[in-house]
Amino acid sequence: MQLTGELLIGGDSRFGTNGEIKGVNPATGQTLEPAFGGATKADVDQAAALAHEAFASYRALPYETRATFLEAIAEHIEALGDDLIVRVMAETGLPRPRLEGERGRTVGQLRLFAGVLRDGGFLEARVDPAQPDRKPLPRPDLRLRNVPLGPVAVFGASNFPLAFSVAGGDTASALAAGCPVIVKAHPAHPGTSEMVGRAIQAAVASVGLHPGVFSMIHDSGYEVSQALVADPRVKAAGFTGSRRGGLALLAVAQGRPEPIPFYAEMSSINPVILLPAALEARAEKIAPDFVAALTLGAGQFCTNPGLILAIDGPELDAFVAAAGQAVEAAPAAVMLTPGICQAFSHGVEALVGAPEVTTVARGQKGADGSHTGQAALFSVAGQAFLANPHLHEEVFGAASIVVRCADQAELERVIAALEGQLTIALHLEEADHALAAALLPTLELKAGRILVNGFGTGVEVANAMVHGGPFPSTSDGRTTSVGTLAIARFLRPVSYQNLPEALLPAELKTDNPLGVARRVDGKLKLA
Amino acid sequence: MQLTGELLIGGDSRFGTNGEIKGVNPATGQTLEPAFGGATKADVDQAAALAHEAFASYRALPYETRATFLEAIAEHIEALGDDLIVRVMAETGLPRPRLEGERGRTVGQLRLFAGVLRDGGFLEARVDPAQPDRKPLPRPDLRLRNVPLGPVAVFGASNFPLAFSVAGGDTASALAAGCPVIVKAHPAHPGTSEMVGRAIQAAVASVGLHPGVFSMIHDSGYEVSQALVADPRVKAAGFTGSRRGGLALLAVAQGRPEPIPFYAEMSSINPVILLPAALEARAEKIAPDFVAALTLGAGQFCTNPGLILAIDGPELDAFVAAAGQAVEAAPAAVMLTPGICQAFSHGVEALVGAPEVTTVARGQKGADGSHTGQAALFSVAGQAFLANPHLHEEVFGAASIVVRCADQAELERVIAALEGQLTIALHLEEADHALAAALLPTLELKAGRILVNGFGTGVEVANAMVHGGPFPSTSDGRTTSVGTLAIARFLRPVSYQNLPEALLPAELKTDNPLGVARRVDGKLKLA
Repeated sequence: MQLTGELLIGGDSRFGTNGEIKGVNPATGQTLEPAFGGATKADVDQAAALAHEAFASYRALPYETRATFLEAIAEHIEALGDDLIVRVMAETGLPRPRLEGERGRTVGQLRLFAGVLRDGGFLEARVDPAQPDRKPLPRPDLRLRNVPLGPVAVFGASNFPLAFSVAGGDTASALAAGCPVIVKAHPAHPGTSEMVGRAIQAAVASVGLHPGVFSMIHDSGYEVSQALVADPRVKAAGFTGSRRGGLALLAVAQGRPEPIPFYAEMSSINPVILLPAALEARAEKIAPDFVAALTLGAGQFCTNPGLILAIDGPELDAFVAAAGQAVEAAPAAVMLTPGICQAFSHGVEALVGAPEVTTVARGQKGADGSHTGQAALFSVAGQAFLANPHLHEEVFGAASIVVRCADQAELERVIAALEGQLTIALHLEEADHALAAALLPTLELKAGRILVNGFGTGVEVANAMVHGGPFPSTSDGRTTSVGTLAIARFLRPVSYQNLPEALLPAELKTDNPLGVARRVDGKLKLA
Repeated sequence: MQLTGELLIGGDSRFGTNGEIKGVNPATGQTLEPAFGGATKADVDQAAALAHEAFASYRALPYETRATFLEAIAEHIEALGDDLIVRVMAETGLPRPRLEGERGRTVGQLRLFAGVLRDGGFLEARVDPAQPDRKPLPRPDLRLRNVPLGPVAVFGASNFPLAFSVAGGDTASALAAGCPVIVKAHPAHPGTSEMVGRAIQAAVASVGLHPGVFSMIHDSGYEVSQALVADPRVKAAGFTGSRRGGLALLAVAQGRPEPIPFYAEMSSINPVILLPAALEARAEKIAPDFVAALTLGAGQFCTNPGLILAIDGPELDAFVAAAGQAVEAAPAAVMLTPGICQAFSHGVEALVGAPEVTTVARGQKGADGSHTGQAALFSVAGQAFLANPHLHEEVFGAASIVVRCADQAELERVIAALEGQLTIALHLEEADHALAAALLPTLELKAGRILVNGFGTGVEVANAMVHGGPFPSTSDGRTTSVGTLAIARFLRPVSYQNLPEALLPAELKTDNPLGVARRVDGKLKLA
């Protein structure tokens, strides 16, 4: 595919007139062609108008057609072939196997949502039949299903150029819900974005949908993003990125005359708790696994293990020593953008300079001028961690702090002081079960996912996945941005009272022609 | 029960020191004894501390015990006997049959949520078994369930002194979810609140729960309410009241260091659309039913029909004439409080004085000095309605505006211009089906409940009920405050990865000992 640098507005494309953006190869510092034209507020307005117009026909499609559309997107992305992988590699510095895997995940989640549409469970259909003879008053016929919210704005993430970008989880779940999507492409991978955006455009055309179902704009500033969230025709937004960026857009979403849901996945340090028996049994085995998770993808995962919690003692010393060795051996890793690399470097230097923090180990240093991150492992006493809230903040990249807790009581105080997290991991042996059981109720209130004897970096796209969590890990801990439950973010329930059979949506008609599971008079019934 | 005027803080009670509140009989203007002491911020702090402390043990209860607790509350409310009804009548001016019905609804919804707990569907349990042999990477074992958010603040509503107050829908659904509740009693019925609050306290004691599970405070200002929503231990809030009050508290909830969900049910004019064939067939039959719904409970329902939309013509003239006659016959009705009565009167006078609005009819006028509302029916041209946003605002009480649309296109423009609503009603005959089908997609985006050939005033407590709707009818259109789905407001999903069987919550253990429905590998399975 020949890249044009154009905005994709509905079925059309044109070069944006609000400045230019170019991709940069972070491995070489080389600027990549072509230039991408930035969107104006008029472009946002047109995309929103088209999305609003498309919503009427798009949401009315049979669910089977919507499923076919998601599958068509997956096919069109696959048809981009190796050109896509080559461009993503150039724009992100991420290695081929990772990106091939990420492409598989991206098309996999589109197909997963096709299955969700065919299953129909997302409709949460309910039927309470009339009781005309009930005393003192008859009961009306009541039926309920979920309907889509309306056009959704999606902000592409820098760290998942495929799986959380133009055709990523937010787009897939919003399109599955019946919502047109307007993507604000991440300026770190504009070429990748154009390729995937054109694949979606092609799928829209091949299924014969209203072209306003999908638009994509470029912008490297904030104003256009804010205009997109503020547009009255946009009814929800999905975002993965920094806490500062997420909170700024959240404020726009809440400050509108009609506030809208804004789903930001923002900030998490993903504590890993090493329980005593596990530490005693396998400190030196856990350590390299931890460092592998820490340094995976240059540490640029939302679920990167940024905090280790354990009770102090010789077993923890052994863990720290082994982890330190592994960190020292970790090669310098190209980071996604010069800006991310600089922010990581500043975050690490702040920890190096903090008097209460011990620098355990630094990884290999990259060549001067390269946009590489140098892994870092720190340690700090539990008391000092409790006293300094800055140590609770995410440093995006391969940096982690071991918190040496004086005893179990201090460990519990440290856990209680944690902010909301995407994940919390427990390393445990059977002898730790009693302690783990005591900690679990608190962990459930702190994180969206709790995992045992592993690290949070692999986020399975599944039915039982929660990639979300209490504030500030996300702006809305009642949801997930990964997995089939993500569709619920873009739906709301509507109740229908005494509608004639002819006017009921198919999923609520008495003979259940779509064969969806329904809750009838409070009892769940399969088709 | 001897009323004391005390705050109920956990299992204790004491007289509040922040001013005094007295009930007023709106029918007589008579002040009611005793005085109720207002809460200080220190009282809020103590209630929140107790709720936080109680949360740990309360959420860990077997669901069966939680169900028993809800049933015990219902029994203790019933045991208050006629004393309760007599006090509510005195404080609200509402008639006995209405209040006996509302008591039945209140205990009924507590028992309904007991059933929800026994069913287990609210847990949304999901299991994705491990696939250790999957290539290229094994799939972990993933399981998901909903957990409660934490202590919930509930603001009692003036217009449902039982069903949306101390032991009302918000309290029942929050307690069912596993959340301790702190109620801010509505100052219009403090005695009713104390009686019901003490019934809950007695149920807490009889089931042997931590007393922090329930507290209730009095206050007639804003500061204490704001302190309650701002308290870091409070994790969600439910509110039914005015748009101004709801938005003020919503801003507090969003402005916290850790924002929380704030579910405000605020403002709705509940349009009733009379389609042509229905109007032709039975204009004069619909009219008295409409006026009965309009004047029910002095019009003080969130779902009161404040707007009639129809295409102009002789059939609409007939409807307006018949409705006007019925309004003229409507007796003056005691309103809930002098303040509500005054606000209604101001709202009606503004419509009377609006040059584009025609006063069709006024109901009977009450005695001078009585806190009675005089029903009012107005009409306005579609064009004028479109041009004046003030005509879209709720006048809380028995006032309604008939919008005479020039033609179907104008009717559609008027519908498109509506704000979010709790309900929209359609009156139709079979000949109207095509038009109704064309309107329905828009109506679904405007309202939480769509009903046919009726009025929204009866809100059935059911599985398929949505009492909610797009902003500004509520602050969060993704939810309902009536019916079993209301429990979802106080829950969030947590995913468990590779947990040993011994550490899994019962509903996620492999052999499903609680017998709950679960989604296994994406397929819904009954127990």
